[in-house]
Amino acid sequence: MIPRPDLTAIQKAAERIRPYIHRTPVCTSETLNGFCGGEVFLKCENFQKVGAFKARGATNAVFSLSDEEAAKGVLTHSSGNHAGALAWAAKTRGIKAEIVMPENAPTVKLNAVKGYGANVYLSKPTQAHREALAAEVAQKTGAKMVHPYNDHLVMAGQGTAALELLDQVADLDLVLAPVGGGGLMAGTALAVKGISEKIEVVGVEPLGSNFAWQSLQKGEIVPQKNPNTVADGLLTAPGNLTFPVLQEYVSHIVTVSDEEIISAMRIVWERMKIIIEPSSAVPVAGLLTKKVDLKGKRAGVIISGGNVDLASLPWN
Amino acid sequence: MIPRPDLTAIQKAAERIRPYIHRTPVCTSETLNGFCGGEVFLKCENFQKVGAFKARGATNAVFSLSDEEAAKGVLTHSSGNHAGALAWAAKTRGIKAEIVMPENAPTVKLNAVKGYGANVYLSKPTQAHREALAAEVAQKTGAKMVHPYNDHLVMAGQGTAALELLDQVADLDLVLAPVGGGGLMAGTALAVKGISEKIEVVGVEPLGSNFAWQSLQKGEIVPQKNPNTVADGLLTAPGNLTFPVLQEYVSHIVTVSDEEIISAMRIVWERMKIIIEPSSAVPVAGLLTKKVDLKGKRAGVIISGGNVDLASLPWN
Repeated sequence: MIPRPDLTAIQKAAERIRPYIHRTPVCTSETLNGFCGGEVFLKCENFQKVGAFKARGATNAVFSLSDEEAAKGVLTHSSGNHAGALAWAAKTRGIKAEIVMPENAPTVKLNAVKGYGANVYLSKPTQAHREALAAEVAQKTGAKMVHPYNDHLVMAGQGTAALELLDQVADLDLVLAPVGGGGLMAGTALAVKGISEKIEVVGVEPLGSNFAWQSLQKGEIVPQKNPNTVADGLLTAPGNLTFPVLQEYVSHIVTVSDEEIISAMRIVWERMKIIIEPSSAVPVAGLLTKKVDLKGKRAGVIISGGNVDLASLPWN
Repeated sequence: MIPRPDLTAIQKAAERIRPYIHRTPVCTSETLNGFCGGEVFLKCENFQKVGAFKARGATNAVFSLSDEEAAKGVLTHSSGNHAGALAWAAKTRGIKAEIVMPENAPTVKLNAVKGYGANVYLSKPTQAHREALAAEVAQKTGAKMVHPYNDHLVMAGQGTAALELLDQVADLDLVLAPVGGGGLMAGTALAVKGISEKIEVVGVEPLGSNFAWQSLQKGEIVPQKNPNTVADGLLTAPGNLTFPVLQEYVSHIVTVSDEEIISAMRIVWERMKIIIEPSSAVPVAGLLTKKVDLKGKRAGVIISGGNVDLASLPWN
């Protein structure tokens, strides 16, 4: 089994995926700094391929396969950005992707995945049926399962965003990321702490889906149950591979309400003229509400993506 | 009177405003290139101070004043981005701004102008009353009128965006800009043609407000009459200072429908994750519709701004 990634593994992932992904820009705003009472540096993965950091982990997983493994393709079950990212990464390598999606997934996401040439399987919208169908497809095709977050290669890939951020911005005091299944958070923490013990790593989670916060309180994984938040990329609980990393390297997790998330999202759209999705606004909300104190400090924030249904915005 | 700006005047304007404005990035998208059949480079003035290129012309005008003139302040009548830009530029120099706005101007724009510390005067929503009130304020305060476009210092300031673009991107075949009163278009044309006769300069105008196109056809200025377009920054006809520049330096003007403008705007939002206003989408629509042929060519596009009412988007 592939071991938990250290800094070297994340650096190797960065080398591996470099030909395929964007080195995304870091965006700043004096207005945002003023609101937060410190300096904020947004690592803009909304400008990444497929519109989200998920391209990094998926590409690292796909390009780590041997030719023999690759010939059988890759497989995942996801309704979110990971499905599109894996389909895109598979297409980039020229291999097959089998994607299990719930039958109530938005048409736009279905079409995006099909547009990358993936085979789509529609499951009933339950976790149990999704996993059963994925297992069936795996058996039939021999495709390699690439989990959205509970996978060391995926975690290493996601960590490359923080690696770039620390190369682009000097003297950060802390780095924030949104927390869902913990793949981005774990990769970010491993990259940042691998570079400097002194930089604090803070997670921010929606109040209506605060399973990582609960899990850290309890000292064990609290499974997902009835998540309810506008941040549709953060509906899951941490996995058995991501949770220990959060325990060890994340200094703390703060939670923000949907109202705070929507307000932060709108401030970034209006003042910075960039489109970020609700999940990306979660760590920004942590700063704007002063739940994470930034006075006199410099914070890097991983902006996870920019995939939003423009026909239905949360403030309308 | 200040003469029509040549390349040297635009370069001097660039020096003058450099400490106050952003050198905005150039954004690209493989998807957009694919749709347009060539290479497209967006000069992103939506990321400019006050969210629009208007900051350039206003800053050049404000910082060209003698101390004696500056002591009396500046004045304009505008319902759009120029009002905010002039108020901001005046605040930056620490002088007074008197802004005449129609009483039906959006509250958000009124508040922005007031937020920069300007004195706001509300006029009836007619051109005649707006100008009469502005004249009255001018007499009372002695403030210097800074016209939104029919002003050589403003034109020179607007031309600095193209100057930067040509410094940032080599070997452009053509440069496109939206056309309203012609300040941006004239400044762009003077900058581009001053640098290279070989680069074509193309204007794009909304079909429902195509007064520059009509004026070029007729060989004289066709005054504004019942403009009707979603591109709310382009409702005016060229002025007597901008029109001769369009006649001399702009190779042609193409027109696009509101449907084409809205579609182009949405494509840029969805694919590039940046917020551009309808006026900015006008030249992009010229490319996407192939009304401007880009096959095998490289086009620079001045993206004029990103000030959009997020509560009322044109596709909803």
